[in-house]
Amino acid sequence: MNIQQPAAKVNWATGNLEGKKVSKTVRKLKHLEGVFADEEAYSSMDPETVVYEVEVLEQEQPGKEGGLLFGTSYLYPGKVGDEYFMTKGHFHEKRDRAEYYWGIRGSGLLLLMDEQGVTTAEQVFPGSLHYVPGHIAHRLVNTGSEVLAVGACWPSDAGHDYGSIADRGFTARVKESGGKAATETG
Amino acid sequence: MNIQQPAAKVNWATGNLEGKKVSKTVRKLKHLEGVFADEEAYSSMDPETVVYEVEVLEQEQPGKEGGLLFGTSYLYPGKVGDEYFMTKGHFHEKRDRAEYYWGIRGSGLLLLMDEQGVTTAEQVFPGSLHYVPGHIAHRLVNTGSEVLAVGACWPSDAGHDYGSIADRGFTARVKESGGKAATETG
Repeated sequence: MNIQQPAAKVNWATGNLEGKKVSKTVRKLKHLEGVFADEEAYSSMDPETVVYEVEVLEQEQPGKEGGLLFGTSYLYPGKVGDEYFMTKGHFHEKRDRAEYYWGIRGSGLLLLMDEQGVTTAEQVFPGSLHYVPGHIAHRLVNTGSEVLAVGACWPSDAGHDYGSIADRGFTARVKESGGKAATETG
Repeated sequence: MNIQQPAAKVNWATGNLEGKKVSKTVRKLKHLEGVFADEEAYSSMDPETVVYEVEVLEQEQPGKEGGLLFGTSYLYPGKVGDEYFMTKGHFHEKRDRAEYYWGIRGSGLLLLMDEQGVTTAEQVFPGSLHYVPGHIAHRLVNTGSEVLAVGACWPSDAGHDYGSIADRGFTARVKESGGKAATETG
């Protein structure tokens, strides 16, 4: 019988994925126009600043029903004005597709918003385990001083709908206030 | 905004899941009749011997399309005759449903068998990451001397078809030979 190495390796201390089919996407400030509330602070910053990176094990074709994808997001510490660095956030294109998230390193919040615009949040820390059911938009926020590394597994036919979030945003923001993270709704 | 604790916690050193909706299934030797080749050795052992345990975060209804389940399997070290302890193994009831596995602790093999009966194996170790595509039966084997802890994420509508494996088995077995793991096909 043929004994093979696994498709990839994951470092449980850092989240790092290593393997032939691991892809990497880099999201810089210039890719996040309109995401942060303070437009003046945004335009004064270097647009090449890396906000987050996503590694994905592309062992399955995106779009394939029944398959899964696996990845790690690295959200760097930082702020635009007093608002913490965050991911673009998305609904799934196939709205009923769920996703699992788990904290590996750092600390932050996972914002969860339903289709009526009600937003809640879950604390993210090493070992936190989060279920994002279908029909729920999700966004990571780094409220700490080190990189926030979060793993994820999601159906390969889920797709990403960033447009709805780009148009309307989330109904809550996370800002630093008096040295602590505070949420602001509206 | 409502800030909540995550649904559960996972210990990345042991695989242990902790949370209100975590269920636990215990598989003893008595539940694994017909699985091991050496029937005489099997019947001489204590049927109450625990072979493996599975913790599952039941945050989603089994059967729900688009949802996901998340779990950790703990496969204990041991042998029946010269054959290492292993899980029952299964195809998914919905054959095209995939699964992710990842090694957390210990060492072993993940057996992968297609519908034509061709079996391959992947090395499982802390940080190994395994993609099981649809239409592939999968079984864990503990070839080490400590517990093998493996995490998994799979679609909540995948279901388990243990029957096909109970009837025909896998086309390969993993046995100790001269102090080392060796595979035997046929």
